[in-house]
Amino acid sequence: MKSLNVGIIGYGFMGRAHSNAFRRVNNFFPLNHQVILKAACGRDAARTRAFADTWGYESVETDWKRLIARDDIDLIDIAAPNNVHAEIALAAARAGKMILCEKPLGMNAAESLTMVKAVEKAKVPNMVWYNYRRIPAVTLAKQLIDEGKLGKVFHYRAKFLQDWTINADVPQGGPGTWRLDVKVAGSGVTGDLLAHCIDTALWLNGGIASVSGMTETFVKERPHALTGRKQKVGIDDASAFLARFNNGSLATFEATRYARGHKALYVFEINGEHASIVWDLHDLHRLQYFDHRDTGNVRGWRSIHVSDGDHPYMKAWWVPGLQIGYEHSFVHQVADFIQGIETGKSAAPTFRDGLATDLVTDAILKSAKSGRWEKVRKG
Amino acid sequence: MKSLNVGIIGYGFMGRAHSNAFRRVNNFFPLNHQVILKAACGRDAARTRAFADTWGYESVETDWKRLIARDDIDLIDIAAPNNVHAEIALAAARAGKMILCEKPLGMNAAESLTMVKAVEKAKVPNMVWYNYRRIPAVTLAKQLIDEGKLGKVFHYRAKFLQDWTINADVPQGGPGTWRLDVKVAGSGVTGDLLAHCIDTALWLNGGIASVSGMTETFVKERPHALTGRKQKVGIDDASAFLARFNNGSLATFEATRYARGHKALYVFEINGEHASIVWDLHDLHRLQYFDHRDTGNVRGWRSIHVSDGDHPYMKAWWVPGLQIGYEHSFVHQVADFIQGIETGKSAAPTFRDGLATDLVTDAILKSAKSGRWEKVRKG
Amino acid sequence: MKSLNVGIIGYGFMGRAHSNAFRRVNNFFPLNHQVILKAACGRDAARTRAFADTWGYESVETDWKRLIARDDIDLIDIAAPNNVHAEIALAAARAGKMILCEKPLGMNAAESLTMVKAVEKAKVPNMVWYNYRRIPAVTLAKQLIDEGKLGKVFHYRAKFLQDWTINADVPQGGPGTWRLDVKVAGSGVTGDLLAHCIDTALWLNGGIASVSGMTETFVKERPHALTGRKQKVGIDDASAFLARFNNGSLATFEATRYARGHKALYVFEINGEHASIVWDLHDLHRLQYFDHRDTGNVRGWRSIHVSDGDHPYMKAWWVPGLQIGYEHSFVHQVADFIQGIETGKSAAPTFRDGLATDLVTDAILKSAKSGRWEKVRKG
Amino acid sequence: MKSLNVGIIGYGFMGRAHSNAFRRVNNFFPLNHQVILKAACGRDAARTRAFADTWGYESVETDWKRLIARDDIDLIDIAAPNNVHAEIALAAARAGKMILCEKPLGMNAAESLTMVKAVEKAKVPNMVWYNYRRIPAVTLAKQLIDEGKLGKVFHYRAKFLQDWTINADVPQGGPGTWRLDVKVAGSGVTGDLLAHCIDTALWLNGGIASVSGMTETFVKERPHALTGRKQKVGIDDASAFLARFNNGSLATFEATRYARGHKALYVFEINGEHASIVWDLHDLHRLQYFDHRDTGNVRGWRSIHVSDGDHPYMKAWWVPGLQIGYEHSFVHQVADFIQGIETGKSAAPTFRDGLATDLVTDAILKSAKSGRWEKVRKG
Repeated sequence: MKSLNVGIIGYGFMGRAHSNAFRRVNNFFPLNHQVILKAACGRDAARTRAFADTWGYESVETDWKRLIARDDIDLIDIAAPNNVHAEIALAAARAGKMILCEKPLGMNAAESLTMVKAVEKAKVPNMVWYNYRRIPAVTLAKQLIDEGKLGKVFHYRAKFLQDWTINADVPQGGPGTWRLDVKVAGSGVTGDLLAHCIDTALWLNGGIASVSGMTETFVKERPHALTGRKQKVGIDDASAFLARFNNGSLATFEATRYARGHKALYVFEINGEHASIVWDLHDLHRLQYFDHRDTGNVRGWRSIHVSDGDHPYMKAWWVPGLQIGYEHSFVHQVADFIQGIETGKSAAPTFRDGLATDLVTDAILKSAKSGRWEKVRKG
Repeated sequence: MKSLNVGIIGYGFMGRAHSNAFRRVNNFFPLNHQVILKAACGRDAARTRAFADTWGYESVETDWKRLIARDDIDLIDIAAPNNVHAEIALAAARAGKMILCEKPLGMNAAESLTMVKAVEKAKVPNMVWYNYRRIPAVTLAKQLIDEGKLGKVFHYRAKFLQDWTINADVPQGGPGTWRLDVKVAGSGVTGDLLAHCIDTALWLNGGIASVSGMTETFVKERPHALTGRKQKVGIDDASAFLARFNNGSLATFEATRYARGHKALYVFEINGEHASIVWDLHDLHRLQYFDHRDTGNVRGWRSIHVSDGDHPYMKAWWVPGLQIGYEHSFVHQVADFIQGIETGKSAAPTFRDGLATDLVTDAILKSAKSGRWEKVRKG
Repeated sequence: MKSLNVGIIGYGFMGRAHSNAFRRVNNFFPLNHQVILKAACGRDAARTRAFADTWGYESVETDWKRLIARDDIDLIDIAAPNNVHAEIALAAARAGKMILCEKPLGMNAAESLTMVKAVEKAKVPNMVWYNYRRIPAVTLAKQLIDEGKLGKVFHYRAKFLQDWTINADVPQGGPGTWRLDVKVAGSGVTGDLLAHCIDTALWLNGGIASVSGMTETFVKERPHALTGRKQKVGIDDASAFLARFNNGSLATFEATRYARGHKALYVFEINGEHASIVWDLHDLHRLQYFDHRDTGNVRGWRSIHVSDGDHPYMKAWWVPGLQIGYEHSFVHQVADFIQGIETGKSAAPTFRDGLATDLVTDAILKSAKSGRWEKVRKG
Repeated sequence: MKSLNVGIIGYGFMGRAHSNAFRRVNNFFPLNHQVILKAACGRDAARTRAFADTWGYESVETDWKRLIARDDIDLIDIAAPNNVHAEIALAAARAGKMILCEKPLGMNAAESLTMVKAVEKAKVPNMVWYNYRRIPAVTLAKQLIDEGKLGKVFHYRAKFLQDWTINADVPQGGPGTWRLDVKVAGSGVTGDLLAHCIDTALWLNGGIASVSGMTETFVKERPHALTGRKQKVGIDDASAFLARFNNGSLATFEATRYARGHKALYVFEINGEHASIVWDLHDLHRLQYFDHRDTGNVRGWRSIHVSDGDHPYMKAWWVPGLQIGYEHSFVHQVADFIQGIETGKSAAPTFRDGLATDLVTDAILKSAKSGRWEKVRKG
């Protein structure tokens, strides 16, 4: 079996989620590559060391340039904040490394485009961590759509609702709260939460032609996590948009961190001519499915417990009825990525797919300012 | 159109539910009989008069014997407490009246048997108010079973859970609480709540062969509603039993008024070889249905919103998606009863069907005392 | 007790719903007025006669002008299609009749304004049949908001989803399908379904400042119900909009008749600083409520079964746990209307409230054409 | 950090679940012991080797006696079929090894008692893999009960429903189906599924005093997995019992593999004086909680998404709203076991706790034969 030597940059929430995926994939999926946790990289040496010890990384770096320079690293995994994605990715591509990058790809579509060009020029396998595509219920939704079960699609709706920033004392900046700092995050919920909704939507329902957006910042000032000083908030707290897809369907999208009662409620629904689908991250192991072709008097929404051997990815895990969780989506993504490099076909979402999402978020933010419908630019 | 002159005895909760059914049935169901609210009868003259005014009864009686003696009454509706069902029914049968009787039929199976003999000898149309058979979702369950959708049945389970008597200050006896007085009610939840479960079960799954029961009285003394004096509680607060049906299926049944959080949760579930069904009174307009013959990857419990024109009784009401409620089951029962007398075929559950339930409750109470399995006697 | 003599115009779906409310209100609510079903009016004499017989109207008219001219009529109930609301209402106001009018009030806000002026000049009690305000769970939502349970509101979202016009063979025009004929209905789902969402929203969350809308007609031609000839479809099949409320909250709204699997799914959700609320017409007897002030480890969405005596309107009906249905909202509305005329205070929604909704629908349709945000005009 | 050298016996479903727990526990829980996967043991050398490779066991044994004899093994984990639990455990205890044993502990209570005596005599840390205690929602239920949230308990009900053996072609005996072979499994669903229900119940609600049981074997003959020959089925396919707990509460329990539509539906409900709790394995990350002390008009069942930092075990995982799955319960159990040996206090359920469950299953099976209530013997 070949080795796949991983160097990870970042040890936060995503650093843990990725590391777990790397460590587990070979226990559950038969692959030709054995993942080796070669090096962890972060600016804070002590914390990086602790992280490396917990997860079994063989070595530690505090300068990502040194990590990229190492010969014993095959794959660079970018789990650092948004504002450093591009610089790292460009350097890694130049060094011929495979690259996995946290979402969103860049700070905006222009930056993302440079990243796409870099990996395509370098011809290195690349992937963006839009992990929700590989929740088994979501993958099943894709299969059903591809089988034609829905017929012509009329409606798509998605929302990603959280409530963790309602308190005005939640700071911005700092390790746990950089997502509230526009200089580090690029945007607020648009790039963070809506981006997930958009990635899934583009995958399931094709391209978006035009959008009408609206954003809001409810809390105008927040203390900085490190200095404690109150600063103007630059991110959007809430973001919603109407859309028209290329296939003629209409859509509503919404993301917010001010929806009391929802911790991470990502829901999407698709209404087709013959059938409809609903999925919800809070009960991620279920898919709601309605098929109008069922006999009339017993027609109803089916709650599919996606835990059988014939459901996507589930044969690898336990037995029917026993659910998996959030983290498994990352394991699946690594498994597919490795199968991709084994077969020579890059697993989606690639950097180019990541760019497609960023083009939509750009259009939303533009529309929110212009007060008009805006076309989504081509990549 | 012919008239059907109704005389009702009792003006409590059930008096209202029956009156509403009588008043509404001709607005929604095309029938050859027009129901006329001819007389209301109760011991308290002032309250009976108020009840008659509210519901539009043409006259008032305070002695049920006088009511039965009246020539202008076709149908006697017994909505009085359990301990007077038999005496009234026997007299009404002798007078040749049609009889509707609240459930349970008698205080015990022996008493019920005299009632059955009386109506069968008098050849008068008769029916017991086990109204849940005519919740559209429950009727749909019956249709699916009759169509053979379930195949061989393995399991039946039912429970009826309430929580309104947990507080030891709730009195016994008196108008609103006679159900806690064993001399008036005959038994506690066994005859009140379990009887509903049993009637539905016998209808959906056939006869019960034998049972092992358990009862309990959690609160041993309660004040009497009228005197305020503490008295020993004679009813069962909770009752559960295991059963074997004649068709080989196994069952668990339970009823209680000590299940905190449940106001009137009547749930039943049937598991067949091919399909299963669940229904729940708290969301009475839905039927849960699972069909194993569905394609594997989209197999799941279907939540059927029983509000379409091709669902039982629903064409008579509004449009798809708009639910009806509890009271409509009584309207349906009157509609079917009238169609029965129009066609010469008595609508179930007849007094004989009511006796069948009482034979099971007798066996449960006997088993709860003997500590052994008991056979259900034949009527 | 005083009489309230009702003359109804229209015998369709709404004619039945109103009639049922008129007939039942005195059985359940103690009022100083007794409703008398005095006359039913419709163009087709035979059908009007059949309708009057079913519901017990004392007389029949085939010309609404004659009905209005009658001295023995106190109240004109307009249950006819949208395009005749204004003309009838103006005449009824001139005749000094109380007026109940089906929603939407007029064909557009300009027409509605004339109706408002007419009833205000005539000083006659008036009300629009936005019945969903009086589903007990919805009224409970209003009470919780008025008590301050939610605190500052951040988000409102509502959708009304149906699927009955997906098939292109469904005709337009004709008795059951005039809602698809723009000349009769005024607009499609915007005035039909969104109007319900807007009325509730204005009531619960105050005024809407501006909107960005989108509409679509998926099926471009339909046969006419009477001639069978294919004609261009003028209504909107789907309509969605973003909104900003005066209180600073953001909103998404959507209505469609192309959402496979939803018969009449009207859902709204409100997210406040402290608490959130969700309601859903498909399970109308429940309110979902989340209160962040609950202790952390047992915090969760509460499913409130709105069937207790301390819930709005429910003391009038049965006992806890036993649900009522769709039609009861109309009964409640009549009860409140009568209490209004008894106390001299008109029950909402008045014609002026109905106009407020029409001003929003006008803005949506304007924005859908202009491709920009539009301000909602003041009445 | 100290090492904890594990030797596992068995490589089936439970072998995988345990191995995963051993491998992951140090990534998520700060402990003083590092788990080392030292050796895997199974009769089939090739399969054991493959298993060891997948999971990273350092060595392989094909004779469990040799494994126990090794000095470099601290802990013996018994993941083999029921009929060898006792023999292995006795030898391991004699060798002074810590022992983890799959449930049920022995083939019956008599055998289990010898195992309890062996570990207690040897004073070795011991634990039975009743993993459901450590689903965070179940642990939360325990905390709420211990805090007194429920008050006096009136009712307990539990059921474990599956449907995988309905087809008569499912064989008995053999690697995947030894649970259907009474000589290997000891009993059917009683020892397999009901045992889980009983363990949780004893933990949450205290001891069971007496039971009335019923069992059934629906399919009387099945082919043997290895020979293909039809043989009489000795196990129970379904098992139900009534129970009285020492605390005065009543209970119903049921387990079956013939409940169409349920893959692994383990549900329990507890009704106390003040509050009630429901949990369901099919949505294991939620706890349903009803508290009667909530204000009346907003009282309802709360659906608690058990994914916050203040929920049991959840701080170790991801962020609020992101659910974990089935397998995590095993990780938690290992974490607690290790903390136990670190602190000198054995983590429950110990072998003695396992015996307590077996004494109940013995009583159920005895009652199912005698047709009477049977007392549960003391250990």
